[in-house]
Amino acid sequence: MTKTLNDLFYETLKDMYYAEKKILRTLPKMAKAANSNELREAFMHHREETEGQIERIEQVFELIGKAARGKTCDAVDGIIEEGKEVIEDFGDSPALDAGLLAGAQAVEHYEISRYGTLVAWAKELGLGEAATLLHETLEQEEKTDQLLTKIAKRTVNAAATPATARV
Amino acid sequence: MTKTLNDLFYETLKDMYYAEKKILRTLPKMAKAANSNELREAFMHHREETEGQIERIEQVFELIGKAARGKTCDAVDGIIEEGKEVIEDFGDSPALDAGLLAGAQAVEHYEISRYGTLVAWAKELGLGEAATLLHETLEQEEKTDQLLTKIAKRTVNAAATPATARV
Repeated sequence: MTKTLNDLFYETLKDMYYAEKKILRTLPKMAKAANSNELREAFMHHREETEGQIERIEQVFELIGKAARGKTCDAVDGIIEEGKEVIEDFGDSPALDAGLLAGAQAVEHYEISRYGTLVAWAKELGLGEAATLLHETLEQEEKTDQLLTKIAKRTVNAAATPATARV
Repeated sequence: MTKTLNDLFYETLKDMYYAEKKILRTLPKMAKAANSNELREAFMHHREETEGQIERIEQVFELIGKAARGKTCDAVDGIIEEGKEVIEDFGDSPALDAGLLAGAQAVEHYEISRYGTLVAWAKELGLGEAATLLHETLEQEEKTDQLLTKIAKRTVNAAATPATARV
């Protein structure tokens, strides 16, 4: 049988289900590694949001009458792998937080892209309720990205430069 | 010696150098697979832009007096791997273009995030000329993402739905 947008929607939902669960496990590790209180709190706050995002994906699975299943998301695995390298290589560096923050923004942008796509496809498929749920998550991801940019500008990037590191 | 933001900047630049070269090789494959002329042209146009983006990264390597070297970017490798799966699984589906387009947007978003970070770090490090070059690329990536959204809304998503697929 020829596959349709319904199948693509389901596959992408599985991808995000895996991604969110992986992010849920990774955020506490990033929070633990962070030096800045503000950045640590942002990671832990987003961990709480992620729990709600997972629940919303489960609701969408239910709405389309499909099993809630995850599927390895190579993209998020890759970004998290890069984040681990940063912790290893910059563990004692004043630039560590800048690297952690950048990694988190890469994850957020991946999610913004995928949720944007899922919202558009849900609308195309006439899945209004699913579109609303996914849009709620999309807005959270966008806000998280904006908050991270603020934290970068306000403290983290300046703290990472050699001059201020010596203060 | 303790690593600084200079090192993080260089590492991230290497990551993007690898990513752009991989994207340069991948775009013609995506163009070949696409059914929509508009989408195919967008991929090929972005391929040309990518050549310029690689040159700009090489200029930044020169500005910071470092060797132009790539470093495996797990994130872009992962996104491209997912794109390959879409071509395999949806090769004969009316939803193929929607999947290809979504994959391209995931790549764009990853790049928007990384170039945004690199611009901020270049400014923090007082690398004005590098910041200008990287910002030029950032704007191209943002425009490409916006164009892809337009193409999705205008033709690709509708063509992917079961109803119109039967026309």
